[in-house]
Amino acid sequence: MDASTERPADPGREAPLVAVLGGGQLGRMLGLAGIPLGLRFRFLDPVAGAPAAAVGELVVGSLGDEAALTQTAAGAVAVTYEWEGVPAAAATFLAVADPGRPVRPGALPLEVAQDRLTEKLACQRLGIPTPAFATVETRAGLDTAIEAVGGLPAVLKTRRGGYDGKGQAVLRASADVEAAWDRLAGDGTVPLILEGFVTFERELSVIAVRSATGDVECWPLVENTHRDGILRLSLAPAPGLSPTLQSRGEEIAASLTTALDHVGVLTVELFERDGELLVNELAPRVHNSGHWTIEGAETSQFENHLRAVLGWPLGSTAMRGGPALAAAMVNCIGALPDRAAILAIPGAHLHDYGKTARRGRKVGHVTVTAPDDATRAERVARVHAVVRDDG
Amino acid sequence: MDASTERPADPGREAPLVAVLGGGQLGRMLGLAGIPLGLRFRFLDPVAGAPAAAVGELVVGSLGDEAALTQTAAGAVAVTYEWEGVPAAAATFLAVADPGRPVRPGALPLEVAQDRLTEKLACQRLGIPTPAFATVETRAGLDTAIEAVGGLPAVLKTRRGGYDGKGQAVLRASADVEAAWDRLAGDGTVPLILEGFVTFERELSVIAVRSATGDVECWPLVENTHRDGILRLSLAPAPGLSPTLQSRGEEIAASLTTALDHVGVLTVELFERDGELLVNELAPRVHNSGHWTIEGAETSQFENHLRAVLGWPLGSTAMRGGPALAAAMVNCIGALPDRAAILAIPGAHLHDYGKTARRGRKVGHVTVTAPDDATRAERVARVHAVVRDDG
Repeated sequence: MDASTERPADPGREAPLVAVLGGGQLGRMLGLAGIPLGLRFRFLDPVAGAPAAAVGELVVGSLGDEAALTQTAAGAVAVTYEWEGVPAAAATFLAVADPGRPVRPGALPLEVAQDRLTEKLACQRLGIPTPAFATVETRAGLDTAIEAVGGLPAVLKTRRGGYDGKGQAVLRASADVEAAWDRLAGDGTVPLILEGFVTFERELSVIAVRSATGDVECWPLVENTHRDGILRLSLAPAPGLSPTLQSRGEEIAASLTTALDHVGVLTVELFERDGELLVNELAPRVHNSGHWTIEGAETSQFENHLRAVLGWPLGSTAMRGGPALAAAMVNCIGALPDRAAILAIPGAHLHDYGKTARRGRKVGHVTVTAPDDATRAERVARVHAVVRDDG
Repeated sequence: MDASTERPADPGREAPLVAVLGGGQLGRMLGLAGIPLGLRFRFLDPVAGAPAAAVGELVVGSLGDEAALTQTAAGAVAVTYEWEGVPAAAATFLAVADPGRPVRPGALPLEVAQDRLTEKLACQRLGIPTPAFATVETRAGLDTAIEAVGGLPAVLKTRRGGYDGKGQAVLRASADVEAAWDRLAGDGTVPLILEGFVTFERELSVIAVRSATGDVECWPLVENTHRDGILRLSLAPAPGLSPTLQSRGEEIAASLTTALDHVGVLTVELFERDGELLVNELAPRVHNSGHWTIEGAETSQFENHLRAVLGWPLGSTAMRGGPALAAAMVNCIGALPDRAAILAIPGAHLHDYGKTARRGRKVGHVTVTAPDDATRAERVARVHAVVRDDG
């Protein structure tokens, strides 16, 4: 048996390499966005078989290990990260190792976003509202802090290391204080922050991207629903989004990215209260509440992050197909839904991260696109009938 | 330096494997569409470093080599192909080797599409118009064939193995006949076909997908412009596309896919003449004139091909963002355009296949999406100002 006609020989050329610290689903989606742009990827992740291994080379190692960092970045034209827990020292180490190779967004956004106190102080200095807050260093200091933020209810959080609702406790009444302190303070060695409880109307986020030349673009603001501290649903644009609210979100994002000299995507999680936006937290990276941009926006957060990191022009952040288009993202937590059932829903797009199932783990998401808000709501309801919401 | 917070461990699970015969840019785009669906890929291609190597494992070997075929298909849940030159015997070999593992679209569509005569006879039997045609087996037979198709001008073609305009000659006058025969007939050993010259208004294509359960869906018909036998520009939907013409294209595609028991994407290249559609040729695979579906349609040709091959429900083939959306695809032939210049054009999406540059080689494409036909025309003009059209 021989090939009946000559197959055209299409040899590959050496593609520019982007090194990514972290190899989870965000790295995987960065790779999927970057391969069509002619890039190749090398990821550093502690876990063999991490999701990004499907789209590039994977170095298995600690994100704080200098040898692993050096190996990951070898030959790269740029370095970026897909996890805010990457040690800022790792970004600094790689920036110093080769000053001609950009490490973006940079070490400073990591430093700021990794500490809830620094995050809030940065906002305060820029005149951006946040919930009331006070540092907590001792058990007695916690009582003082409760007074300072205006009394209970309030939320006690570790300053560092929390994600997906971990490392925090809501203090509803005095009886909750002791247990929360015991659980989070680690014999007084763990730095804490107390935040006033915000009775917000809804949670929003603004995904912004800042280019190497300082241009800032934002996607339409997103409305987010969390449960058990984990994002469940994003609606984009946020229902009833007014131009005023969009502008306010863009101002906040532009102010923060510029102040931090952030290059790439920055996500700002927000509370909306009486038409005002308060910053909840920052993520100096592509974000779960921006996954809808893959199908819903003219340029995805992943592509624009890479464009920024590589010093290329940014793409449009408008809704794809015009401003009437509505998008939504439903997270698959713990287990994937029935694939055929999801694929049969009009406008539904399945993203399977290739992970093993486990309670509380983000294993995939479903994006829904629709011609209007009503159709979006109907399609999301159909997705919710298939995606278990108890994972 | 240590990671400041615990990185969540996200171990991967073994993804279902799809084996693809051929590892060019079509395989690469199949992989990019399939990884989000939780699939992994193994490609067979004669060339090390073929474009699809970026998105899966690559077996380097001949598409007609049984050992290489066996190695490529080992452990796969399904086998498909991305090149119409794959020997039908290879598809049959793999189908027989494991009758429980689908090989789709199948051997029959390859057999039919690889021979211009069989292709035309299949249309004729289904009552689908084609240009006039006649087989040519001898030099004397060529003269008879010229009479049979209604005289000159006519087009002499090899029955097998032509692509991108290779293997054919236009006979405008009697003086052209001898040279064309000498060039194509290989001392009378190469089977030829003569086709009447069609004075068509334009070239169109219909991309159709047929599911394992026999559902057929078509994307909006595409208008194609070739030069030197190579596709240069596709406009989708074709300008001025009427519902009647769309229906006629869908009828032809449904008739052919059903008759061939084709499962997956089938592309039918068409001539439009006086509002009538004539079949020029078939490609039993995803097609260059369908690349715009990645950004322009609700579901891309690549995703729907995989859905069909795996027995999953098909996704919508509607324009993404509503029927007003207009898309276009500009091929990059010979060399890639300036990347920053392309990325700066609104609605432009760059696809770099990662190939080395060479005259006549398809090294990438640019998709343009736009809210209407006029904006599409303006954006295509901006792309054409950057993409060299002489490759």
